[in-house]
Amino acid sequence: MPLPNEPTLALACDLISRASETPEDAGCLDLIQARLAPLGFRFERIDVGGVCNLWARRGEQAPVLCFAGHTDVVPTGPLERWDSPPFEPTIRDGMLYGRGAADMKTSLAAFVTSIEQFIADHPNHSGSIALLLTSDEEGIASHGTVKVVEALAARGERLDYCIVGEPTSVNTLGDTIKNGRRGSLSGTLRVKGQQGHVAYPQLARNPIHMLAPALAELTTIRWDEGNEFFPATTWQVSNIHAGTGANNVIPGECEVMFNFRFASVSTADELKARTHEVLDRHGLEYTIDWHLSGKPFITGRGKLVAALSGAISETLGVETELSTTGGTSDGRFIADVCSEVVEFGPVNATIHKLNECVAVDAIAPLSTVYMRTLRTLLAA
Amino acid sequence: MPLPNEPTLALACDLISRASETPEDAGCLDLIQARLAPLGFRFERIDVGGVCNLWARRGEQAPVLCFAGHTDVVPTGPLERWDSPPFEPTIRDGMLYGRGAADMKTSLAAFVTSIEQFIADHPNHSGSIALLLTSDEEGIASHGTVKVVEALAARGERLDYCIVGEPTSVNTLGDTIKNGRRGSLSGTLRVKGQQGHVAYPQLARNPIHMLAPALAELTTIRWDEGNEFFPATTWQVSNIHAGTGANNVIPGECEVMFNFRFASVSTADELKARTHEVLDRHGLEYTIDWHLSGKPFITGRGKLVAALSGAISETLGVETELSTTGGTSDGRFIADVCSEVVEFGPVNATIHKLNECVAVDAIAPLSTVYMRTLRTLLAA
Repeated sequence: MPLPNEPTLALACDLISRASETPEDAGCLDLIQARLAPLGFRFERIDVGGVCNLWARRGEQAPVLCFAGHTDVVPTGPLERWDSPPFEPTIRDGMLYGRGAADMKTSLAAFVTSIEQFIADHPNHSGSIALLLTSDEEGIASHGTVKVVEALAARGERLDYCIVGEPTSVNTLGDTIKNGRRGSLSGTLRVKGQQGHVAYPQLARNPIHMLAPALAELTTIRWDEGNEFFPATTWQVSNIHAGTGANNVIPGECEVMFNFRFASVSTADELKARTHEVLDRHGLEYTIDWHLSGKPFITGRGKLVAALSGAISETLGVETELSTTGGTSDGRFIADVCSEVVEFGPVNATIHKLNECVAVDAIAPLSTVYMRTLRTLLAA
Repeated sequence: MPLPNEPTLALACDLISRASETPEDAGCLDLIQARLAPLGFRFERIDVGGVCNLWARRGEQAPVLCFAGHTDVVPTGPLERWDSPPFEPTIRDGMLYGRGAADMKTSLAAFVTSIEQFIADHPNHSGSIALLLTSDEEGIASHGTVKVVEALAARGERLDYCIVGEPTSVNTLGDTIKNGRRGSLSGTLRVKGQQGHVAYPQLARNPIHMLAPALAELTTIRWDEGNEFFPATTWQVSNIHAGTGANNVIPGECEVMFNFRFASVSTADELKARTHEVLDRHGLEYTIDWHLSGKPFITGRGKLVAALSGAISETLGVETELSTTGGTSDGRFIADVCSEVVEFGPVNATIHKLNECVAVDAIAPLSTVYMRTLRTLLAA
């Protein structure tokens, strides 16, 4: 397919044609950097452990509006089940197909074209425009955005506004902005017992039996009530394992993996303490390996939300909704150095699936929304 | 080592030297049959699926006193950790070492020599003497004693007394007779849920969470109070498994393996019904695969217990105790065709272990105990 004329669509196609499965960047960052270089951006590549990261900034002043995103895509799945090859961008029936079409190469293209347009219109804008891009958001993400954020924090560089280009729209472009994400706190609990023969339970201590009432209690706890933006914190067991397969042996240990998705009204430390309180009260001998994979963040109805929802309304005629549902995103890291962080991008119905796609007629408007947000916040 | 002069010790050594790991018989049954043939026994080999079984009987009349046992032994474990080769019977410091020394080739030898002696003394005894021997008691045991019992039951052949030669003695020969065994009822419970993402528990049903309160309740149930011979029925979970390892997925199913060891005051059907009642009341969607691996059996203080404990007292000067503890034995099958079943044999301290052994000076007395029991019950 020859590249189309519409600039955002054309750049999206160019990016999709680069097979950048995590943590591969496949030249996407170079392509973007080449587009931004003539506009007066300064660039910093912070590549760590096979992950490519790009920090770009135009201007020295506050406020800083940053676009954040990732060039990597999730695996294609079985190629033969795609109707067209995932790394050959293909337009069919008004949809642009390809791995990354919705998550999130169209957003990256719209970042670039919105910036190009805005600078053309406002070469002497106020504040600064920045980009924070990584090639590992879909994977372990330990060498991606978090590393750039650490570098910024180390030198005291702060952001004021950040738009993460995640595909947040549900039914139609513009219907949903994510203005926060729940935190994610995982634990691996190991309850110790005493192995023995089922015929002699008095000589053993069955860790499954000891755990059962504590587990039952943990499932019924109302951890908090959530708030205006967040549903109540949830606790879910994902794995439980004990026993060797033999049906005459009382196992010596039971392992449970669980996960909190928590509202900003609870802290990780509070949730840990309450978990320990229940297990201690039930007299269990146990250990927990805790892993905080994301603190919650929340951006209230401030300047960024107002500018972005205004741009959506003006461009698309859509009343946008604030939401904090879903998994984690790189917003969790950026919130450490940025006052207002939101996520906004295309319809997410097909992300991570076969035949991932985005509506062609929603591509140019996405760029317009980003551009109008820039205008509201940074026009001189 | 040349075979010793004492006849029971000599035969025990001959049997131990045959490496009859389950389901191998290694010629043990032929050896025993050759010893009994001159005494007027009739023989029936019921070999099924690689398992050798021998039924032998002398006499047509009731009462029938049967000796039951197995020629197979458990695996040796690491040979280099034995102080002498497990299939080379070796006497050291007053102990006879070898795999099967205690479980239960010394008992088999004592069966044979006690019968030889008894018939020499009482060639025209009343009733019948029988032997029921198998080469698979330690393994799956589905083609062993149970097959002989089925054959007996099919032709209406019933036993009155049965002594299983299991090593029941604890500290000294004669201190313990087992006059019953608990039943063993296993179940594999599969609780159905709805798989989903831990970030969206409202779209899933977590089978671990649904199961937890039911499991907690099942661990606290007092199933019965036991009786004079049996401790209270116990319920133990041996295995619990759910989850794929991923910590962000709510699993679709949770599997639990459990086992009842039950007293003769409860029936398998009652225990099943009560388990289902709890699971149903908790609203679980589930299946259970039940497996009754042994019904309980109990032999009260009747003629067999009196004869055997009298013989023990007379031979060893030991006050014997009745016990029903421990796992299952082939007594569970024999009880279907026999009014009074007990188990009695050597000290069991080393069974299934490295350097299995039996005290040499307890070997001839074991034969005497069996012989005196025969005399009490069958002397004309």
